[in-house]
Amino acid sequence: MASGKILVAQGGGPTAVINQSLVGVALEARRFGEVTRIYGARHGVRGIVNEDFVDLTQETSHNLELVANTPSSALGSTRDKPDMRYCQEIFKVLQAHQIEHFFYIGGNDSSDTVRIVSLEAQKAGYPLRSIHIPKTIDNDLVGNDHTPGFPSAARFVAQAFAGANLDNAALPGVYVGVVMGRHAGFLTAASALGKKFPDDGPHLIYLPERTFVLENFLADVKAAYERFGRCVIAVSEGIHDASGAPIASLLAKDLEHDAHGNVQLSGNGALADLLCEEIKSKLGIKRVRGDTFGYLQRSFIGCVSDVDQREAREVGEKAVQFAMWGTQDGSVAIKRTGFYSVDYELLPLSAVAGKTRVMEDEFIASNGTDVTDAFRMYLRPLLGSGMPDAFRLRHHPVAKVLNPGR
Amino acid sequence: MASGKILVAQGGGPTAVINQSLVGVALEARRFGEVTRIYGARHGVRGIVNEDFVDLTQETSHNLELVANTPSSALGSTRDKPDMRYCQEIFKVLQAHQIEHFFYIGGNDSSDTVRIVSLEAQKAGYPLRSIHIPKTIDNDLVGNDHTPGFPSAARFVAQAFAGANLDNAALPGVYVGVVMGRHAGFLTAASALGKKFPDDGPHLIYLPERTFVLENFLADVKAAYERFGRCVIAVSEGIHDASGAPIASLLAKDLEHDAHGNVQLSGNGALADLLCEEIKSKLGIKRVRGDTFGYLQRSFIGCVSDVDQREAREVGEKAVQFAMWGTQDGSVAIKRTGFYSVDYELLPLSAVAGKTRVMEDEFIASNGTDVTDAFRMYLRPLLGSGMPDAFRLRHHPVAKVLNPGR
Repeated sequence: MASGKILVAQGGGPTAVINQSLVGVALEARRFGEVTRIYGARHGVRGIVNEDFVDLTQETSHNLELVANTPSSALGSTRDKPDMRYCQEIFKVLQAHQIEHFFYIGGNDSSDTVRIVSLEAQKAGYPLRSIHIPKTIDNDLVGNDHTPGFPSAARFVAQAFAGANLDNAALPGVYVGVVMGRHAGFLTAASALGKKFPDDGPHLIYLPERTFVLENFLADVKAAYERFGRCVIAVSEGIHDASGAPIASLLAKDLEHDAHGNVQLSGNGALADLLCEEIKSKLGIKRVRGDTFGYLQRSFIGCVSDVDQREAREVGEKAVQFAMWGTQDGSVAIKRTGFYSVDYELLPLSAVAGKTRVMEDEFIASNGTDVTDAFRMYLRPLLGSGMPDAFRLRHHPVAKVLNPGR
Repeated sequence: MASGKILVAQGGGPTAVINQSLVGVALEARRFGEVTRIYGARHGVRGIVNEDFVDLTQETSHNLELVANTPSSALGSTRDKPDMRYCQEIFKVLQAHQIEHFFYIGGNDSSDTVRIVSLEAQKAGYPLRSIHIPKTIDNDLVGNDHTPGFPSAARFVAQAFAGANLDNAALPGVYVGVVMGRHAGFLTAASALGKKFPDDGPHLIYLPERTFVLENFLADVKAAYERFGRCVIAVSEGIHDASGAPIASLLAKDLEHDAHGNVQLSGNGALADLLCEEIKSKLGIKRVRGDTFGYLQRSFIGCVSDVDQREAREVGEKAVQFAMWGTQDGSVAIKRTGFYSVDYELLPLSAVAGKTRVMEDEFIASNGTDVTDAFRMYLRPLLGSGMPDAFRLRHHPVAKVLNPGR
């Protein structure tokens, strides 16, 4: 056959660096003489079944470099989770277009798609090389030291909490920031990297890896507020009770909504608002504010880790090298080799596909509301260079004149 | 008397550059031989009446420079709005500490405090020089081309919408971003500076300067969604109906809450969530997401305009020069002199105090849901250098094989 055709696509939630991986594939593939065409599918697997392809070979390397530095998925993405039949459709299109190498940049679901397509090709005896390229801000791919996209989102969260802490110190009260991550708390835990001085917030961190108990939460907040005169709290959107029920629905269950006002409880500001109400009403603290970081944490332009950019580019390049020189389908993974250095390996698709990594116990403090130094060591190099730093006035008090005793 | 003592304080909501003004005062004052002590009041006027002062003269210029580059109010702030009696307390403390020059960095309310304190000193025949130094992310001080703090917050909003637009283009749907600003729409309007390509969002902008009509809003969203296949919307938290009633309360009024769940409707995620519900239920669009930018837009560390930093520093320096060499109390204001250059002047306190500027008509498009080129010309230089830019893949379609006609 030897058509020399490559197909690349992007799936799932966009990240700040997902285009680095796309451009890594496109530019590295051009270095192989046998590659004739590099197609990009628009909007992920949806674009594949619709044969909605663009020819990336006709792009200039200059524009590709500019796109690489632009966040979000330049080819467009999709939330479609292909089942077996959908994957057979995908394979049919790949076959029709004589695609020899298929690269899919995405998370858990995307790796599972690649796995099924790979099996379909094997069954059909069609010589397809299928490679999954990792990306997810949740950092929840097993077998990976970390995943491209997470470091930049973590940087956003760390910077957001560093700033929220300064704001909260200027106007003391309680601040609740709700962070993305249904099952894995890595991104919420990144808030801890916003701390510098010992009394800085976040003073409390609630992760989906630990059961959330409202009474304990309120006691924690009360104690922190009494100790620091203020309290900054990082909360994962995925916090749940012992039965696994989301806290937002539990808090809202005695709220009466008519049919018209049946506000959904996920993907919006409800959790932050409900937690704030609990703190106000149960602890009698007046100034309580909540933010839901929402899409900003994955889409904000101009907050990116240079380490993340570099690695996202390299997983794209390595994917092509593994495909062209290797003999196996698989999922590219980042392996940490030093403090701080990495290498890349190709994992079997079955080792990654559809599995979810959560935060390791060694990263969570024993009290359940903080991270460990091991986590700080793990995350800090990923955030990259040029992290903003916060400074304080030193305290040189002036003697009172009117009320010297006070 | 000639104590040579200066007092500086920070009031109201923190900004990314308010410490530049503080440090501008502290460093410029040291250049005047007659200045013996520079005091800072902790937590604004509250710290003055409590005689809670720190001696900034004992700070190193090196640490001051680092604090200048740190966002939020390094001295702490307050939400206290002093009345006449409170201002008399302030004056009593200034007198007791032999303060000769009083600098208060803040917005409308702070300028009014300076005005009353200035009058008290005059009445008492006490030789006090009182200067108001402007700051507010809302850009709502009259007599000012713009106010320090606004450009950096505007930069955050522009970057946030540039990113949200890219995310929305990758996963099409409707996105609603709610921006701070009760009365003045400048910050919401800054979302327009996130646009680059003609079909970029925000496609619709809703400002408090225009009456919000729900039916028109839904028709606008429908039209934009049909045209672009998606829709990004910037909404001011201050949108209201013809009677001035906040839209959040109107949308929520048929929601039944028990006493426990009496969620407040401002300063939280309610407006974004309620607007999203309207779009989903009335227009039948499935993917509708809302974010409330909340405190991030004023507190996020690492998103600052260099123009804003420079000007915030200069208004602090100029305040000291006006105080030491001038004969009038007043409020420092930025005057635009070119494209782009500024100068500083001292306005009478009565010209600024307690007044609110809103967006001029020439800045708002006639359809009421966009800004004009005049506004883009006004805002762009304020955002500073190094604004992140977004690039796209060019469209080189590949011919379909399986369904060539589709």
